[in-house]
Amino acid sequence: MTRKQLIEQIQTKKSYLCVGLDTDIKKIPAHLQSHPNAVFEFNKQIIDATQDLCIAYKLNTAFYEAMGVKGWQAMEDTVKYIPKNQFIIADAKRGDIGNTSTQYAKAFFETMDFDAITVAPYMGEDSVRPFLAFENKWAIVLGLTSNAGSKDFEQLKVVGHATNNSDVDPATNNSKEYLYESVLKKVSSWGTDENLMFVVGATKASDLLGIRKIIPEHFLLVPGVGFQGGSLAEVSKYGMNKDCGLLVNASRAIIYAGEKEDFANEARAIAKQYQTEMAGYLS
Amino acid sequence: MTRKQLIEQIQTKKSYLCVGLDTDIKKIPAHLQSHPNAVFEFNKQIIDATQDLCIAYKLNTAFYEAMGVKGWQAMEDTVKYIPKNQFIIADAKRGDIGNTSTQYAKAFFETMDFDAITVAPYMGEDSVRPFLAFENKWAIVLGLTSNAGSKDFEQLKVVGHATNNSDVDPATNNSKEYLYESVLKKVSSWGTDENLMFVVGATKASDLLGIRKIIPEHFLLVPGVGFQGGSLAEVSKYGMNKDCGLLVNASRAIIYAGEKEDFANEARAIAKQYQTEMAGYLS
Repeated sequence: MTRKQLIEQIQTKKSYLCVGLDTDIKKIPAHLQSHPNAVFEFNKQIIDATQDLCIAYKLNTAFYEAMGVKGWQAMEDTVKYIPKNQFIIADAKRGDIGNTSTQYAKAFFETMDFDAITVAPYMGEDSVRPFLAFENKWAIVLGLTSNAGSKDFEQLKVVGHATNNSDVDPATNNSKEYLYESVLKKVSSWGTDENLMFVVGATKASDLLGIRKIIPEHFLLVPGVGFQGGSLAEVSKYGMNKDCGLLVNASRAIIYAGEKEDFANEARAIAKQYQTEMAGYLS
Repeated sequence: MTRKQLIEQIQTKKSYLCVGLDTDIKKIPAHLQSHPNAVFEFNKQIIDATQDLCIAYKLNTAFYEAMGVKGWQAMEDTVKYIPKNQFIIADAKRGDIGNTSTQYAKAFFETMDFDAITVAPYMGEDSVRPFLAFENKWAIVLGLTSNAGSKDFEQLKVVGHATNNSDVDPATNNSKEYLYESVLKKVSSWGTDENLMFVVGATKASDLLGIRKIIPEHFLLVPGVGFQGGSLAEVSKYGMNKDCGLLVNASRAIIYAGEKEDFANEARAIAKQYQTEMAGYLS
Protein backbone atom coordinates (compact mmCIF):
# COMPACT_ATOMS: atom_id res chain seq x y z
CA MET A 1 0.00 0.00 0.00
CA THR A 2 1.31 3.47 -0.80
CA ARG A 3 1.32 6.41 1.62
CA LYS A 4 -1.28 8.12 -0.54
CA GLN A 5 -3.60 5.11 -0.37
CA LEU A 6 -3.16 4.88 3.41
CA ILE A 7 -4.05 8.54 3.86
CA GLU A 8 -7.11 8.09 1.67
CA GLN A 9 -8.31 5.25 3.86
CA ILE A 10 -7.85 7.35 6.99
CA GLN A 11 -9.83 10.22 5.47
CA THR A 12 -12.57 8.00 4.07
CA LYS A 13 -13.13 5.96 7.23
CA LYS A 14 -12.32 8.84 9.61
CA SER A 15 -10.12 6.49 11.56
CA TYR A 16 -6.48 5.79 12.32
CA LEU A 17 -7.28 2.73 14.38
CA CYS A 18 -5.15 -0.39 14.06
CA VAL A 19 -6.68 -3.52 15.57
CA GLY A 20 -4.09 -5.80 17.10
CA LEU A 21 -4.80 -9.49 16.47
CA ASP A 22 -2.53 -10.74 19.27
CA THR A 23 -4.69 -13.81 19.57
CA ASP A 24 -3.91 -16.09 22.49
CA ILE A 25 -5.83 -19.35 22.22
CA LYS A 26 -6.08 -19.45 26.02
CA LYS A 27 -7.97 -16.17 26.09
CA ILE A 28 -10.51 -16.57 23.33
CA PRO A 29 -14.12 -17.37 24.27
CA ALA A 30 -14.79 -20.82 25.63
CA HIS A 31 -17.27 -21.74 22.93
CA LEU A 32 -14.56 -21.40 20.28
CA GLN A 33 -11.87 -23.40 22.05
CA SER A 34 -12.88 -26.69 20.47
CA HIS A 35 -13.11 -25.27 16.96
CA PRO A 36 -10.55 -27.00 14.68
CA ASN A 37 -9.18 -23.62 13.59
CA ALA A 38 -10.07 -21.67 16.69
CA VAL A 39 -7.63 -18.79 16.28
CA PHE A 40 -8.47 -18.16 12.63
CA GLU A 41 -12.20 -18.41 13.39
CA PHE A 42 -11.81 -15.88 16.20
CA ASN A 43 -9.81 -13.55 13.96
CA LYS A 44 -12.37 -13.79 11.15
CA GLN A 45 -15.20 -12.75 13.43
CA ILE A 46 -13.16 -9.87 14.87
CA ILE A 47 -12.23 -8.71 11.35
CA ASP A 48 -15.81 -8.92 10.11
CA ALA A 49 -16.99 -6.87 13.07
CA THR A 50 -14.33 -4.15 12.93
CA GLN A 51 -13.06 -3.72 9.37
CA ASP A 52 -15.24 -0.71 8.62
CA LEU A 53 -13.97 1.08 11.73
CA CYS A 54 -10.21 0.61 11.33
CA ILE A 55 -7.62 1.10 8.61
CA ALA A 56 -5.02 -1.42 9.79
CA TYR A 57 -4.56 -4.79 11.44
CA LYS A 58 -1.43 -5.82 13.32
CA LEU A 59 -0.51 -9.42 14.04
CA ASN A 60 2.14 -9.97 16.69
CA THR A 61 3.87 -13.05 15.35
CA ALA A 62 4.90 -14.31 18.80
CA PHE A 63 1.36 -15.41 19.57
CA TYR A 64 1.22 -17.42 16.36
CA GLU A 65 4.74 -18.85 16.72
CA ALA A 66 3.85 -20.12 20.19
CA MET A 67 1.35 -22.45 18.52
CA GLY A 68 3.91 -23.93 16.14
CA VAL A 69 2.99 -24.91 12.59
CA LYS A 70 -0.72 -24.51 13.28
CA GLY A 71 -0.07 -20.99 14.46
CA TRP A 72 1.93 -20.04 11.36
CA GLN A 73 -0.94 -21.46 9.27
CA ALA A 74 -3.46 -19.38 11.24
CA MET A 75 -1.35 -16.28 10.58
CA GLU A 76 -1.21 -17.01 6.83
CA ASP A 77 -4.96 -17.64 6.72
CA THR A 78 -5.68 -14.45 8.65
CA VAL A 79 -3.56 -12.28 6.37
CA LYS A 80 -5.35 -13.70 3.32
CA TYR A 81 -8.72 -12.99 4.93
CA ILE A 82 -8.12 -9.36 5.82
CA PRO A 83 -9.66 -7.01 3.22
CA LYS A 84 -7.06 -5.62 0.85
CA ASN A 85 -7.83 -2.00 1.67
CA GLN A 86 -6.45 -2.63 5.16
CA PHE A 87 -2.83 -1.85 6.05
CA ILE A 88 -1.54 -5.16 7.40
CA ILE A 89 1.38 -5.09 9.82
CA ALA A 90 3.58 -8.01 10.90
CA ASP A 91 4.62 -7.01 14.41
CA ALA A 92 7.68 -9.22 14.32
CA LYS A 93 10.48 -6.88 15.42
CA ARG A 94 12.89 -8.65 13.12
CA GLY A 95 16.44 -7.63 12.23
CA ASP A 96 19.64 -9.46 11.25
CA ILE A 97 22.61 -9.14 8.92
CA GLY A 98 21.87 -8.19 5.32
CA ASN A 99 21.07 -11.47 3.60
CA THR A 100 19.14 -12.70 6.61
CA SER A 101 17.01 -9.56 6.84
CA THR A 102 16.25 -10.13 3.15
CA GLN A 103 14.91 -13.58 4.07
CA TYR A 104 12.71 -12.01 6.76
CA ALA A 105 11.46 -9.48 4.24
CA LYS A 106 10.64 -12.29 1.80
CA ALA A 107 8.82 -14.21 4.54
CA PHE A 108 6.49 -11.30 5.30
CA PHE A 109 6.33 -9.38 2.00
CA GLU A 110 6.30 -12.24 -0.51
CA THR A 111 5.41 -15.57 1.09
CA MET A 112 2.75 -13.65 3.04
CA ASP A 113 1.32 -10.37 1.79
CA PHE A 114 1.86 -8.05 4.74
CA ASP A 115 2.20 -4.34 3.94
CA ALA A 116 4.66 -3.65 6.72
CA ILE A 117 6.91 -5.25 9.31
CA THR A 118 8.26 -3.90 12.59
CA VAL A 119 12.06 -3.91 12.68
CA ALA A 120 14.56 -3.77 15.56
CA PRO A 121 17.40 -1.32 14.81
CA TYR A 122 20.21 -2.56 17.10
CA MET A 123 22.40 -4.01 14.34
CA GLY A 124 22.33 -0.86 12.24
CA GLU A 125 21.97 0.10 8.59
CA ASP A 126 22.69 -3.14 6.79
CA SER A 127 20.12 -4.88 8.99
CA VAL A 128 17.37 -2.35 8.19
CA ARG A 129 17.88 -1.47 4.51
CA PRO A 130 16.89 -4.89 3.12
CA PHE A 131 13.33 -4.25 4.34
CA LEU A 132 13.21 -1.07 2.24
CA ALA A 133 13.89 -2.82 -1.05
CA PHE A 134 10.29 -3.95 -1.65
CA GLU A 135 7.92 -1.74 -3.61
CA ASN A 136 4.94 -0.40 -1.66
CA LYS A 137 6.14 -2.19 1.46
CA TRP A 138 7.12 -0.53 4.74
CA ALA A 139 9.59 -1.02 7.59
CA ILE A 140 8.32 0.23 10.95
CA VAL A 141 11.44 0.67 13.04
CA LEU A 142 11.47 0.66 16.84
CA GLY A 143 12.02 4.16 18.16
CA LEU A 144 10.87 4.92 21.70
CA THR A 145 8.85 2.16 23.27
CA SER A 146 6.57 2.60 26.27
CA ASN A 147 7.66 -0.38 28.36
CA ALA A 148 9.70 0.07 31.54
CA GLY A 149 12.83 -1.28 29.85
CA SER A 150 12.98 1.69 27.49
CA LYS A 151 15.08 3.38 30.15
CA ASP A 152 17.82 0.75 29.90
CA PHE A 153 19.13 1.59 26.43
CA GLU A 154 16.65 3.70 24.41
CA GLN A 155 16.86 6.50 26.95
CA LEU A 156 20.61 6.46 27.40
CA LYS A 157 22.34 9.61 26.26
CA VAL A 158 24.67 8.97 23.38
CA VAL A 159 27.58 11.06 22.24
CA GLY A 160 28.04 11.81 18.60
CA HIS A 161 29.78 14.43 16.52
CA ALA A 162 28.11 17.81 16.71
CA THR A 163 25.84 18.43 13.75
CA ASN A 164 22.83 20.68 13.84
CA ASN A 165 21.92 19.35 17.22
CA SER A 166 21.47 22.22 19.62
CA ASP A 167 22.05 19.97 22.61
CA VAL A 168 25.80 20.39 22.42
CA ASP A 169 28.10 20.01 25.38
CA PRO A 170 30.31 23.09 25.27
CA ALA A 171 33.05 21.35 27.20
CA THR A 172 33.50 18.73 24.52
CA ASN A 173 31.64 20.09 21.51
CA ASN A 174 29.90 16.73 21.36
CA SER A 175 26.18 16.56 20.87
CA LYS A 176 24.26 14.50 23.39
CA GLU A 177 20.95 12.99 22.50
CA TYR A 178 18.99 9.96 23.54
CA LEU A 179 19.76 6.70 21.76
CA TYR A 180 16.21 6.64 20.42
CA GLU A 181 16.68 10.11 18.93
CA SER A 182 19.83 8.89 17.23
CA VAL A 183 17.84 5.95 15.90
CA LEU A 184 15.12 8.22 14.51
CA LYS A 185 17.63 10.51 12.84
CA LYS A 186 19.87 7.87 11.33
CA VAL A 187 17.18 5.43 10.26
CA SER A 188 15.07 8.12 8.63
CA SER A 189 18.06 8.95 6.43
CA TRP A 190 18.09 5.39 5.07
CA GLY A 191 14.63 5.60 3.52
CA THR A 192 11.76 8.02 3.00
CA ASP A 193 8.45 8.80 4.65
CA GLU A 194 6.94 6.57 1.98
CA ASN A 195 8.63 3.36 3.10
CA LEU A 196 9.57 4.01 6.74
CA MET A 197 7.54 4.44 9.88
CA PHE A 198 8.56 4.36 13.54
CA VAL A 199 7.19 2.65 16.64
CA VAL A 200 6.63 5.30 19.27
CA GLY A 201 4.99 4.28 22.53
CA ALA A 202 2.10 6.30 23.90
CA THR A 203 4.42 8.19 26.17
CA LYS A 204 4.73 11.66 27.53
CA ALA A 205 3.52 14.54 25.42
CA SER A 206 6.91 16.22 25.75
CA ASP A 207 8.61 13.18 24.19
CA LEU A 208 6.18 13.30 21.25
CA LEU A 209 6.90 16.97 20.63
CA GLY A 210 10.61 16.27 20.50
CA ILE A 211 10.07 13.30 18.23
CA ARG A 212 7.94 15.31 15.81
CA LYS A 213 10.76 17.88 15.58
CA ILE A 214 13.03 15.10 14.33
CA ILE A 215 10.51 13.33 12.07
CA PRO A 216 7.61 15.67 11.24
CA GLU A 217 6.31 13.68 8.26
CA HIS A 218 6.81 10.01 9.10
CA PHE A 219 3.88 7.91 10.24
CA LEU A 220 4.15 6.70 13.82
CA LEU A 221 2.81 3.33 14.97
CA VAL A 222 1.64 3.83 18.52
CA PRO A 223 1.21 0.39 20.05
CA GLY A 224 0.15 1.16 23.55
CA VAL A 225 -3.27 2.67 23.78
CA GLY A 226 -5.73 0.67 25.85
CA PHE A 227 -4.41 -1.82 28.42
CA GLN A 228 -0.89 -0.45 28.05
CA GLY A 229 -2.05 2.95 29.15
CA GLY A 230 -1.47 6.23 27.39
CA SER A 231 -4.09 8.71 26.34
CA LEU A 232 -5.45 8.75 22.81
CA ALA A 233 -6.22 12.43 23.23
CA GLU A 234 -2.64 13.35 24.09
CA VAL A 235 -1.09 11.14 21.45
CA SER A 236 -3.38 12.63 18.82
CA LYS A 237 -2.84 16.21 19.95
CA TYR A 238 0.94 16.04 19.99
CA GLY A 239 1.59 13.34 17.40
CA MET A 240 -0.68 14.20 14.45
CA ASN A 241 0.52 16.01 11.38
CA LYS A 242 -1.36 17.27 8.32
CA ASP A 243 -1.64 13.73 6.91
CA CYS A 244 -2.71 12.40 10.31
CA GLY A 245 0.60 10.53 10.53
CA LEU A 246 -0.56 8.14 13.22
CA LEU A 247 -1.55 4.49 13.38
CA VAL A 248 -2.86 3.85 16.90
CA ASN A 249 -3.09 0.22 17.90
CA ALA A 250 -5.43 -1.37 20.38
CA SER A 251 -5.41 -5.10 20.92
CA ARG A 252 -6.62 -6.56 24.19
CA ALA A 253 -9.10 -3.77 24.87
CA ILE A 254 -10.87 -4.66 21.63
CA ILE A 255 -10.41 -8.34 20.94
CA TYR A 256 -11.06 -9.50 24.51
CA ALA A 257 -13.88 -7.04 25.18
CA GLY A 258 -16.34 -9.92 25.20
CA GLU A 259 -16.06 -13.47 26.47
CA LYS A 260 -19.22 -15.06 25.09
CA GLU A 261 -20.84 -15.84 21.78
CA ASP A 262 -21.36 -12.11 21.11
CA PHE A 263 -17.68 -11.32 21.60
CA ALA A 264 -17.38 -9.84 18.13
CA ASN A 265 -20.16 -7.34 18.84
CA GLU A 266 -18.46 -6.36 22.08
CA ALA A 267 -15.23 -5.88 20.16
CA ARG A 268 -17.02 -3.74 17.61
CA ALA A 269 -18.46 -1.56 20.36
CA ILE A 270 -15.00 -0.77 21.71
CA ALA A 271 -13.58 -0.20 18.22
CA LYS A 272 -16.49 2.17 17.56
CA GLN A 273 -15.57 4.17 20.65
CA TYR A 274 -12.02 4.57 19.37
CA GLN A 275 -13.14 5.49 15.87
CA THR A 276 -15.67 8.01 17.11
CA GLU A 277 -13.03 9.75 19.21
CA MET A 278 -10.55 9.63 16.32
CA ALA A 279 -13.08 11.11 13.89
CA GLY A 280 -13.34 14.05 16.24
CA TYR A 281 -9.57 14.62 16.24
CA LEU A 282 -9.33 14.26 12.46
CA SER A 283 -11.83 17.00 11.73
CA MET B 1 21.09 -28.24 28.69
CA THR B 2 23.05 -27.02 31.70
CA ARG B 3 26.36 -25.18 31.53
CA LYS B 4 28.05 -28.20 33.06
CA GLN B 5 26.64 -30.49 30.39
CA LEU B 6 27.73 -28.11 27.64
CA ILE B 7 31.28 -27.94 28.98
CA GLU B 8 31.39 -31.75 29.17
CA GLN B 9 30.42 -32.00 25.51
CA ILE B 10 33.14 -29.53 24.54
CA GLN B 11 35.75 -31.50 26.48
CA THR B 12 34.58 -34.90 25.23
CA LYS B 13 34.36 -33.96 21.55
CA LYS B 14 37.29 -31.51 21.69
CA SER B 15 35.18 -29.04 19.79
CA TYR B 16 33.33 -25.76 20.24
CA LEU B 17 31.96 -25.80 16.72
CA CYS B 18 28.38 -24.77 16.08
CA VAL B 19 27.05 -25.73 12.64
CA GLY B 20 24.67 -23.14 11.24
CA LEU B 21 21.73 -24.70 9.42
CA ASP B 22 20.80 -21.52 7.52
CA THR B 23 19.33 -23.63 4.78
CA ASP B 24 18.26 -21.76 1.66
CA ILE B 25 16.32 -24.04 -0.68
CA LYS B 26 17.78 -22.16 -3.65
CA LYS B 27 21.31 -23.10 -2.61
CA ILE B 28 21.02 -26.77 -1.78
CA PRO B 29 22.28 -29.35 -4.31
CA ALA B 30 20.26 -29.72 -7.48
CA HIS B 31 19.53 -33.40 -6.94
CA LEU B 32 17.63 -32.58 -3.74
CA GLN B 33 15.52 -29.74 -5.10
CA SER B 34 12.67 -32.01 -6.15
CA HIS B 35 12.57 -33.89 -2.85
CA PRO B 36 9.17 -33.37 -1.14
CA ASN B 37 10.94 -32.26 2.06
CA ALA B 38 14.12 -30.93 0.50
CA VAL B 39 15.25 -28.68 3.34
CA PHE B 40 14.72 -31.28 6.06
CA GLU B 41 16.43 -33.96 3.93
CA PHE B 42 19.39 -31.66 3.38
CA ASN B 43 19.59 -30.86 7.09
CA LYS B 44 19.40 -34.53 8.06
CA GLN B 45 22.35 -35.40 5.88
CA ILE B 46 24.38 -32.47 7.17
CA ILE B 47 23.57 -33.45 10.78
CA ASP B 48 24.46 -37.11 10.19
CA ALA B 49 27.78 -36.08 8.67
CA THR B 50 28.81 -33.52 11.30
CA GLN B 51 27.25 -34.38 14.65
CA ASP B 52 30.35 -36.07 16.03
CA LEU B 53 32.46 -33.00 15.22
CA CYS B 54 30.33 -30.23 16.70
CA ILE B 55 28.56 -29.53 19.98
CA ALA B 56 25.85 -27.20 18.72
CA TYR B 57 23.52 -26.47 15.81
CA LYS B 58 22.05 -23.06 15.07
CA LEU B 59 18.99 -22.50 12.90
CA ASN B 60 18.42 -18.97 11.65
CA THR B 61 14.65 -18.83 11.63
CA ALA B 62 14.52 -16.30 8.76
CA PHE B 63 15.44 -18.96 6.23
CA TYR B 64 12.61 -21.18 7.44
CA GLU B 65 10.08 -18.36 7.74
CA ALA B 66 10.76 -17.37 4.13
CA MET B 67 9.29 -20.73 3.11
CA GLY B 68 6.05 -20.20 5.05
CA VAL B 69 4.28 -23.06 6.80
CA LYS B 70 6.47 -25.67 5.06
CA GLY B 71 9.53 -23.87 6.39
CA TRP B 72 8.26 -23.78 9.97
CA GLN B 73 7.52 -27.52 9.64
CA ALA B 74 11.05 -28.15 8.36
CA MET B 75 12.43 -26.27 11.34
CA GLU B 76 10.33 -28.33 13.78
CA ASP B 77 11.39 -31.57 12.08
CA THR B 78 15.04 -30.56 12.14
CA VAL B 79 15.03 -29.71 15.84
CA LYS B 80 13.45 -33.08 16.61
CA TYR B 81 16.10 -34.84 14.51
CA ILE B 82 19.17 -33.24 16.08
CA PRO B 83 20.73 -35.55 18.72
CA LYS B 84 19.85 -34.49 22.24
CA ASN B 85 23.46 -34.05 23.33
CA GLN B 86 23.69 -31.12 20.93
CA PHE B 87 23.11 -27.53 22.11
CA ILE B 88 20.36 -26.29 19.78
CA ILE B 89 20.10 -22.56 19.14
CA ALA B 90 17.20 -20.66 17.58
CA ASP B 91 18.91 -17.71 15.92
CA ALA B 92 15.75 -15.64 15.96
CA LYS B 93 16.90 -12.34 17.50
CA ARG B 94 13.53 -11.95 19.17
CA GLY B 95 12.47 -9.34 21.75
CA ASP B 96 9.24 -7.58 22.70
CA ILE B 97 7.34 -6.39 25.76
CA GLY B 98 7.06 -8.82 28.64
CA ASN B 99 4.05 -10.97 27.83
CA THR B 100 5.03 -11.11 24.17
CA SER B 101 8.59 -12.18 24.91
CA THR B 102 7.04 -14.94 27.02
CA GLN B 103 5.15 -16.10 23.93
CA TYR B 104 8.41 -16.16 21.96
CA ALA B 105 10.03 -18.14 24.74
CA LYS B 106 7.16 -20.65 24.68
CA ALA B 107 7.44 -20.94 20.90
CA PHE B 108 11.10 -21.93 21.04
CA PHE B 109 11.47 -23.55 24.47
CA GLU B 110 8.18 -25.44 24.73
CA THR B 111 6.46 -25.85 21.38
CA MET B 112 9.91 -26.63 19.97
CA ASP B 113 12.73 -27.95 22.15
CA PHE B 114 15.54 -25.47 21.45
CA ASP B 115 18.11 -25.00 24.23
CA ALA B 116 18.69 -21.35 23.49
CA ILE B 117 17.40 -18.35 21.56
CA THR B 118 19.19 -15.21 20.39
CA VAL B 119 17.58 -12.06 21.79
CA ALA B 120 17.72 -8.40 20.70
CA PRO B 121 18.21 -6.07 23.70
CA TYR B 122 16.89 -2.72 22.40
CA MET B 123 13.69 -2.69 24.49
CA GLY B 124 15.51 -3.39 27.77
CA GLU B 125 15.03 -5.52 30.85
CA ASP B 126 11.37 -6.48 30.67
CA SER B 127 11.91 -7.66 27.10
CA VAL B 128 14.84 -9.92 28.02
CA ARG B 129 13.94 -11.37 31.42
CA PRO B 130 11.03 -13.54 30.18
CA PHE B 131 13.54 -15.67 28.27
CA LEU B 132 15.38 -16.38 31.52
CA ALA B 133 12.39 -17.94 33.24
CA PHE B 134 12.80 -21.41 31.70
CA GLU B 135 14.88 -24.06 33.45
CA ASN B 136 18.00 -25.19 31.61
CA LYS B 137 17.23 -22.77 28.76
CA TRP B 138 19.41 -19.89 27.63
CA ALA B 139 19.04 -16.40 26.21
CA ILE B 140 21.91 -15.37 23.91
CA VAL B 141 21.71 -11.59 23.80
CA LEU B 142 23.16 -9.48 20.99
CA GLY B 143 26.29 -7.70 22.16
CA LEU B 144 28.77 -6.56 19.52
CA THR B 145 28.00 -7.81 16.05
CA SER B 146 30.49 -7.95 13.20
CA ASN B 147 28.39 -6.42 10.44
CA ALA B 148 29.10 -2.93 9.11
CA GLY B 149 26.01 -1.54 10.83
CA SER B 150 27.47 -2.20 14.27
CA LYS B 151 28.96 1.28 14.05
CA ASP B 152 25.53 2.94 13.82
CA PHE B 153 24.34 2.23 17.36
CA GLU B 154 26.34 -0.55 19.06
CA GLN B 155 29.51 1.49 18.81
CA LEU B 156 28.05 4.81 19.90
CA LYS B 157 29.46 6.12 23.13
CA VAL B 158 26.84 6.32 25.84
CA VAL B 159 26.93 8.53 28.86
CA GLY B 160 25.99 7.04 32.16
CA HIS B 161 26.63 7.72 35.80
CA ALA B 162 30.19 7.00 36.89
CA THR B 163 30.48 3.60 38.56
CA ASN B 164 33.65 1.56 38.50
CA ASN B 165 34.22 2.51 34.93
CA SER B 166 37.67 3.90 34.55
CA ASP B 167 36.72 5.66 31.35
CA VAL B 168 35.40 8.71 33.14
CA ASP B 169 35.25 12.13 31.61
CA PRO B 170 36.79 14.42 34.22
CA ALA B 171 34.93 17.40 32.85
CA THR B 172 31.57 15.86 33.62
CA ASN B 173 32.37 12.89 35.89
CA ASN B 174 30.26 10.82 33.55
CA SER B 175 31.52 7.46 32.37
CA LYS B 176 31.58 6.93 28.65
CA GLU B 177 31.39 3.47 27.23
CA TYR B 178 30.12 1.93 24.05
CA LEU B 179 26.44 1.04 23.88
CA TYR B 180 27.40 -2.61 23.47
CA GLU B 181 29.45 -2.45 26.66
CA SER B 182 26.45 -1.02 28.48
CA VAL B 183 24.39 -3.89 27.06
CA LEU B 184 26.87 -6.49 28.29
CA LYS B 185 27.02 -4.96 31.76
CA LYS B 186 23.33 -4.41 32.28
CA VAL B 187 22.07 -7.62 30.69
CA SER B 188 24.55 -9.78 32.57
CA SER B 189 23.10 -8.42 35.81
CA TRP B 190 19.65 -9.75 34.86
CA GLY B 191 20.72 -13.40 34.79
CA THR B 192 23.73 -15.61 35.41
CA ASP B 193 26.43 -17.27 33.34
CA GLU B 194 24.23 -20.35 33.51
CA ASN B 195 21.31 -18.90 31.55
CA LEU B 196 22.83 -16.02 29.59
CA MET B 197 25.28 -15.88 26.71
CA PHE B 198 26.17 -13.05 24.36
CA VAL B 199 26.56 -12.74 20.59
CA VAL B 200 29.97 -11.29 19.89
CA GLY B 201 31.10 -11.03 16.27
CA ALA B 202 34.51 -12.27 15.26
CA THR B 203 35.92 -8.81 15.49
CA LYS B 204 39.16 -7.21 16.53
CA ALA B 205 41.22 -8.87 19.22
CA SER B 206 41.24 -5.63 21.20
CA ASP B 207 37.45 -5.65 21.34
CA LEU B 208 37.47 -9.20 22.65
CA LEU B 209 39.91 -8.34 25.40
CA GLY B 210 37.68 -5.49 26.55
CA ILE B 211 34.62 -7.70 26.38
CA ARG B 212 36.25 -10.43 28.45
CA LYS B 213 37.06 -7.82 31.14
CA ILE B 214 33.33 -7.13 31.42
CA ILE B 215 32.10 -10.74 31.14
CA PRO B 216 34.93 -13.15 31.90
CA GLU B 217 32.72 -16.20 32.53
CA HIS B 218 29.84 -15.96 30.09
CA PHE B 219 29.80 -18.07 26.96
CA LEU B 220 30.09 -16.08 23.72
CA LEU B 221 28.34 -17.11 20.51
CA VAL B 222 30.63 -16.05 17.69
CA PRO B 223 28.60 -16.13 14.50
CA GLY B 224 31.02 -14.94 11.92
CA VAL B 225 33.83 -17.36 11.27
CA GLY B 226 34.00 -18.58 7.71
CA PHE B 227 32.41 -16.53 4.93
CA GLN B 228 31.86 -13.61 7.30
CA GLY B 229 35.59 -13.38 7.92
CA GLY B 230 37.31 -13.29 11.26
CA SER B 231 40.06 -15.58 12.40
CA LEU B 232 39.33 -18.64 14.51
CA ALA B 233 42.84 -18.40 15.93
CA GLU B 234 42.39 -14.83 17.18
CA VAL B 235 38.88 -15.41 18.51
CA SER B 236 40.08 -18.48 20.39
CA LYS B 237 43.21 -16.81 21.73
CA TYR B 238 41.46 -13.72 23.07
CA GLY B 239 37.99 -15.09 23.75
CA MET B 240 38.52 -18.40 25.53
CA ASN B 241 38.32 -18.82 29.27
CA LYS B 242 38.97 -21.83 31.50
CA ASP B 243 35.65 -23.42 30.50
CA CYS B 244 36.33 -22.67 26.84
CA GLY B 245 33.48 -20.17 26.93
CA LEU B 246 33.05 -20.02 23.15
CA LEU B 247 30.56 -21.36 20.64
CA VAL B 248 31.95 -20.61 17.19
CA ASN B 249 29.46 -20.85 14.35
CA ALA B 250 30.14 -21.68 10.74
CA SER B 251 27.29 -21.98 8.31
CA ARG B 252 27.84 -21.43 4.61
CA ALA B 253 31.46 -22.61 4.69
CA ILE B 254 30.27 -25.99 5.91
CA ILE B 255 26.79 -26.62 4.57
CA TYR B 256 27.49 -25.38 1.04
CA ALA B 257 30.97 -26.90 0.81
CA GLY B 258 29.68 -29.37 -1.72
CA GLU B 259 27.14 -29.06 -4.52
CA LYS B 260 26.66 -32.66 -5.59
CA GLU B 261 25.46 -35.96 -4.19
CA ASP B 262 28.47 -36.12 -1.85
CA PHE B 263 27.73 -32.69 -0.36
CA ALA B 264 27.47 -34.11 3.15
CA ASN B 265 30.98 -35.58 2.93
CA GLU B 266 32.30 -32.24 1.71
CA ALA B 267 30.56 -30.57 4.66
CA ARG B 268 32.10 -33.08 7.03
CA ALA B 269 35.56 -32.37 5.64
CA ILE B 270 35.24 -28.66 6.40
CA ALA B 271 33.76 -29.32 9.84
CA LYS B 272 36.68 -31.66 10.52
CA GLN B 273 39.12 -28.88 9.67
CA TYR B 274 37.45 -26.60 12.22
CA GLN B 275 37.31 -29.30 14.88
CA THR B 276 40.94 -30.23 14.39
CA GLU B 277 42.03 -26.63 14.81
CA MET B 278 39.76 -26.22 17.84
CA ALA B 279 41.12 -29.37 19.48
CA GLY B 280 44.54 -27.79 19.26
CA TYR B 281 43.39 -24.62 21.00
CA LEU B 282 41.54 -26.56 23.70
CA SER B 283 44.57 -28.53 24.80
